[in-house]
Amino acid sequence: MPLKRRESGLKAVLVIGDGMADRPVKELDWKTPLEAAHKPSLNQIAKTGISGIMDPVSPGLPPGSDTATLALLGYDALKVYSGRGAFEAIGSGIEVLPGDVAFRCNFATVNKNLVVLDRRAGRIANKDASKLAESIQKIKLEKLLDSEFLFKNTIQHRAVLIIRKPGLSIAVSDFDPGNVGEKVSDVKPLENTSEAKLTAKIVNELMQEFHKNLKEHPVNKERVKCGLPPANMILCRGAGTVPNIKPLSQMYGISTACIGATPLVRGVCKAAGMKLIDVKGATGTPQTDFMAKTKATIQALKTHDFVFLHVKAPDVASHDGNIKQKVELIEKIDRMLGYLLGNIDVDSTYLAVTADHTTSLVTRSHEGDPVPIAITGPYIRRDDVEEFNERKCAKGGLNRIKSMDLMYILMNLLGKTKKFGA
Amino acid sequence: MPLKRRESGLKAVLVIGDGMADRPVKELDWKTPLEAAHKPSLNQIAKTGISGIMDPVSPGLPPGSDTATLALLGYDALKVYSGRGAFEAIGSGIEVLPGDVAFRCNFATVNKNLVVLDRRAGRIANKDASKLAESIQKIKLEKLLDSEFLFKNTIQHRAVLIIRKPGLSIAVSDFDPGNVGEKVSDVKPLENTSEAKLTAKIVNELMQEFHKNLKEHPVNKERVKCGLPPANMILCRGAGTVPNIKPLSQMYGISTACIGATPLVRGVCKAAGMKLIDVKGATGTPQTDFMAKTKATIQALKTHDFVFLHVKAPDVASHDGNIKQKVELIEKIDRMLGYLLGNIDVDSTYLAVTADHTTSLVTRSHEGDPVPIAITGPYIRRDDVEEFNERKCAKGGLNRIKSMDLMYILMNLLGKTKKFGA
Repeated sequence: MPLKRRESGLKAVLVIGDGMADRPVKELDWKTPLEAAHKPSLNQIAKTGISGIMDPVSPGLPPGSDTATLALLGYDALKVYSGRGAFEAIGSGIEVLPGDVAFRCNFATVNKNLVVLDRRAGRIANKDASKLAESIQKIKLEKLLDSEFLFKNTIQHRAVLIIRKPGLSIAVSDFDPGNVGEKVSDVKPLENTSEAKLTAKIVNELMQEFHKNLKEHPVNKERVKCGLPPANMILCRGAGTVPNIKPLSQMYGISTACIGATPLVRGVCKAAGMKLIDVKGATGTPQTDFMAKTKATIQALKTHDFVFLHVKAPDVASHDGNIKQKVELIEKIDRMLGYLLGNIDVDSTYLAVTADHTTSLVTRSHEGDPVPIAITGPYIRRDDVEEFNERKCAKGGLNRIKSMDLMYILMNLLGKTKKFGA
Repeated sequence: MPLKRRESGLKAVLVIGDGMADRPVKELDWKTPLEAAHKPSLNQIAKTGISGIMDPVSPGLPPGSDTATLALLGYDALKVYSGRGAFEAIGSGIEVLPGDVAFRCNFATVNKNLVVLDRRAGRIANKDASKLAESIQKIKLEKLLDSEFLFKNTIQHRAVLIIRKPGLSIAVSDFDPGNVGEKVSDVKPLENTSEAKLTAKIVNELMQEFHKNLKEHPVNKERVKCGLPPANMILCRGAGTVPNIKPLSQMYGISTACIGATPLVRGVCKAAGMKLIDVKGATGTPQTDFMAKTKATIQALKTHDFVFLHVKAPDVASHDGNIKQKVELIEKIDRMLGYLLGNIDVDSTYLAVTADHTTSLVTRSHEGDPVPIAITGPYIRRDDVEEFNERKCAKGGLNRIKSMDLMYILMNLLGKTKKFGA
């Protein structure tokens, strides 16, 4: 009996170590963190599977977490990317409608000359941030040209602003200067269009109104009394709209789930029509509950064809330049994969592991280098790569592919791609 | 302290052996010239670096020197290429304005039936060519529909013709039949547009006027007396305009320099906004001063972020089918690289070496085969390739890339690519 393509019953799980790929590091004797780590399960996947390297978006181009995730889900990020803001909002559980312009925001501390003293207002606690956000949301908008806005805090200093009005644009600069010691910068239109000008005008007025409200707020007066930096300014950046993309279910006829805590990544997955599964203890930090996420993945596989498991932690260690922590976090991901390998049906499940991009411990930035990829599962053309890392995978049977091709490759293994031609 | 991406201080030099790649040759015991040559420094670069193979434009497509150089500088030649003529002119130091149509020309010898007897008029000396060019430039243009023209000889039989008038087109055929023994061919419009028709008309009239002027010229009468072929015809080909490309400085925020003698390659580099560095003794021939070019490269690296060093010689040997000379020239390039390796700061400089394309000793033509590439420098993901040649590099960590991706890969290593996304 043939295995029917469309009703194969095969499933796939894709595990992403955010920023896990790296360049050789002097302190690791010119090994990469992946090369230095003890990682029997990652190696097991390479050994029993097919490996390769993968350009996240295009060779040499450093991607963001949002564009890299779009690519991993099979979308052409260069064509469909429409800014960060909407993903951040959607990922935080806030509805964004087509046409809305959304911004990622920080609660911040500025001095009376509007120079930024702390971009995170001392990593303000959720409790304080919630009260301030409520207060901001009540601001009356007489001046604001008939626009509506929605302001919501998410985790600590993080927040989201959505502006709703027909005829807005994402072609505006950031209010957030990006660095401590710099003055907040008026939002400017990045295109000579009435839409961009209008959007810039509204955002600037909002930022002023927010500042007026915040600086007199009792919560901030209390913070100053306790020696905490007041959250007296909102810094917004990354204007974005919801992208015009087809959900994965529609493209491949599959049910999909995302397990990950980072709002930006969750937002991309949500925009792709995936079910977001909340996991207690999943924080998007190096202290996240790795095992809880793993168990949730195994659970999700029972009811979904495709599960995307995202682990932010190695990216955090890379941005901090923390070599030892990055190696340890890779070893924790390895243990997740060991548990996964032992608890999924290997006869009917493809398991792929990769990074969304390289984050260099030296530059502490995203880099455009390719990432290693390995896929194990039934009917794979197993190659002779025996270790999962940047250099060994480069010798694998997948050769060099692009992230945006991976989803299609997996869906083909699952029998979910449609024949093109006769 | 992290290495700051944008202010990394890292530099790169890209060395091109023109037409250096080849196919296996019977006379070399089925080795390629790169495989047969003694080349310790090229091997050193492979050994300490990452290697791969590279499709100049796309697999199987034989590129010209102009399209191959465009690709090596990171441009999509299939989209931006706008003919040879303008590059040839710019590379010879002649200004070409947007809208001008430029042609590469030869001084040639024809008989009275306009059959080509010598496409290079006996490789006419610069002195004679200059006098003839001056005479041509003085021709009055009453018939020529208000167009202006500029005619200038460059080296030996080579010359450039520029026609300036609004509404011209590059969609015209060549006046140069390409082969000895064939009659010159009237320029024809290659599109059914008034622009192409007008351009063809103007070029044909110019060619006739030039012929009238040349055949009676005292310089040619003197040449005939001395038994030299008269330069009694101009053969033009390769209509082109300046391409619409962004300079490298604007794309990556870097300062760039080109060291190379071939006008066509210099023209592409100039169009990319690079500084052309003149080197005494650099001729674009197998007799070029290899060491002078190498020293100029080291000098240029002191004041530029990116230096492009182009060596035409192996292409010349290939077109001549001269196996022994091609091997020797590769060995000379190897000595250049040895000197470079010993005189650049290897801790802060990436050194890449490749060919612009394959030129086959057997077909004596450009071929569409991939070329070997190796990059050495700090933070490279060193692989286990130990020899620089077509077959060993194919097993390297870069796998198979495209020439147009190389520049982006280098700029990423230098920290000059900008993040796409958040």
